[in-house]
Amino acid sequence: MTERDSDIPETAAARPAQTAPVVAVVLAAGFGTRFDPDNPKQLVSVGGKPIVCWSIEAFEHCGRVSDIVVVVNPKVRSAVESLIDDMGYTKVRVIIDGGAERVDSTAAALDTLAAAGIPDDAKILIHDAVRPFVEQSSIEGSIDALDQFTAATVAYASTDTVLLTEDLGDVKVVKSVPDRPNTFRAQTPQSFRFATIRRAYELAASDPDFHPTDDTRVVVDYLPDEPVAIVSGSETNLKITTLEDVPTAEHIAEEIQGRDPKEEARARMHALLAQAAGQMR
Amino acid sequence: MTERDSDIPETAAARPAQTAPVVAVVLAAGFGTRFDPDNPKQLVSVGGKPIVCWSIEAFEHCGRVSDIVVVVNPKVRSAVESLIDDMGYTKVRVIIDGGAERVDSTAAALDTLAAAGIPDDAKILIHDAVRPFVEQSSIEGSIDALDQFTAATVAYASTDTVLLTEDLGDVKVVKSVPDRPNTFRAQTPQSFRFATIRRAYELAASDPDFHPTDDTRVVVDYLPDEPVAIVSGSETNLKITTLEDVPTAEHIAEEIQGRDPKEEARARMHALLAQAAGQMR
Repeated sequence: MTERDSDIPETAAARPAQTAPVVAVVLAAGFGTRFDPDNPKQLVSVGGKPIVCWSIEAFEHCGRVSDIVVVVNPKVRSAVESLIDDMGYTKVRVIIDGGAERVDSTAAALDTLAAAGIPDDAKILIHDAVRPFVEQSSIEGSIDALDQFTAATVAYASTDTVLLTEDLGDVKVVKSVPDRPNTFRAQTPQSFRFATIRRAYELAASDPDFHPTDDTRVVVDYLPDEPVAIVSGSETNLKITTLEDVPTAEHIAEEIQGRDPKEEARARMHALLAQAAGQMR
Repeated sequence: MTERDSDIPETAAARPAQTAPVVAVVLAAGFGTRFDPDNPKQLVSVGGKPIVCWSIEAFEHCGRVSDIVVVVNPKVRSAVESLIDDMGYTKVRVIIDGGAERVDSTAAALDTLAAAGIPDDAKILIHDAVRPFVEQSSIEGSIDALDQFTAATVAYASTDTVLLTEDLGDVKVVKSVPDRPNTFRAQTPQSFRFATIRRAYELAASDPDFHPTDDTRVVVDYLPDEPVAIVSGSETNLKITTLEDVPTAEHIAEEIQGRDPKEEARARMHALLAQAAGQMR
């Protein structure tokens, strides 16, 4: 673990309870086994900017996010550190080493936050670095949802019918077809009050058979009485999984970068006003 | 119903049982309420060709498909008829009127096939016209799957974690998170031995509360002892649902049209050889 700024405990823990810190955890530790092994996908550029920078900036630019934790693997650590320095991000407090699986990376981040004395009511937004185009409205929606729920996830309504399958010999066959309005594709950020995600992970840690690929599932399976709210995602908040996703990502980057600057300014103004309104509550 | 060729009963029903007819049903009856109401989505051109033509051609070009039935709504009937005449498709036997919902359109097609004396073991491939880029391998895979199963559906493994939700007041919350390897996104064609889909629809028709959006579900829910096999789909076999899908569709059309003609010729040769091998069995 590399402390980038020794004052996390103070900035995060010293605030009054009514303005809980909002911490974004950007998971950039995946080795991308389905991607080009010589070119880690977090570092691939789309629209002229490395994917990990898009993701960090989504939270850097959200006025309600107070701190950012970036989780890396040792292979990309120095590259990510240089990028963060070069780009001058001001909210990145710490870069920590992730683990072998996704849950190990989340667990490492939670341990770091606990050691930093983060309060139980802090809002933790866990985001996959390889979803570079998360919308500000999804981040804002996640922060808002935690006023009513202890857990929330950005998700996008499935336009295709979802099939749940089982194995019949070496063939997959359909087991059931859930009602389409109740099927969503999980995206990130997945957001939690700190005490909730911490408790869920403690329970999961004592179960050696549990290897979730998703933080929401840890809460759903281990704290079944805590409802997890759905926050609206978007088609463009895609996960860059394989090289085949790069052209689509370039296309989205182009659309975003080509947006009318006046429109952008209006959106920023709107976000600032919403933030100001939030502070006045 | 417009009979385009009075010999369907003969071509379809008169073959020996070991070479069951393979009938593609192309559903082009949707009104596309999420689309431009003045420009039915089946008729929108991508890559310079109307979407419905891409879908018909997918089956026209598959040597193992014997007959094509096109289901339309009255609003597009004359446009679709003209297109089929102009393009000179040779396998389109009949164009019939669909119903208010998707299942009504499938039911209308099944009634037509029954009236035409189609045998119980005919292989029926039901395809959404708004999935113009179905791969030949998915069509071939569907036909093959029906040698072992009475029902099959093309589907694509979900790369995103799927969330099953329920309503909590006016908020959707997560009910369960199925294991990702057992979650698929249904595509089409969905394929059935004629007797199986006919029986499933008869059972569903007597249940006034049942309004499936998917043919596979009719079999899964009403004939639970008949396993439905998963056939490999593709990311490009997308459903064009809204105007926002058109740029992606244009991009895919461009890729397909830009393919190396030598490579295409090799693929066609390969398909012909596979077909010849099938006939020699």
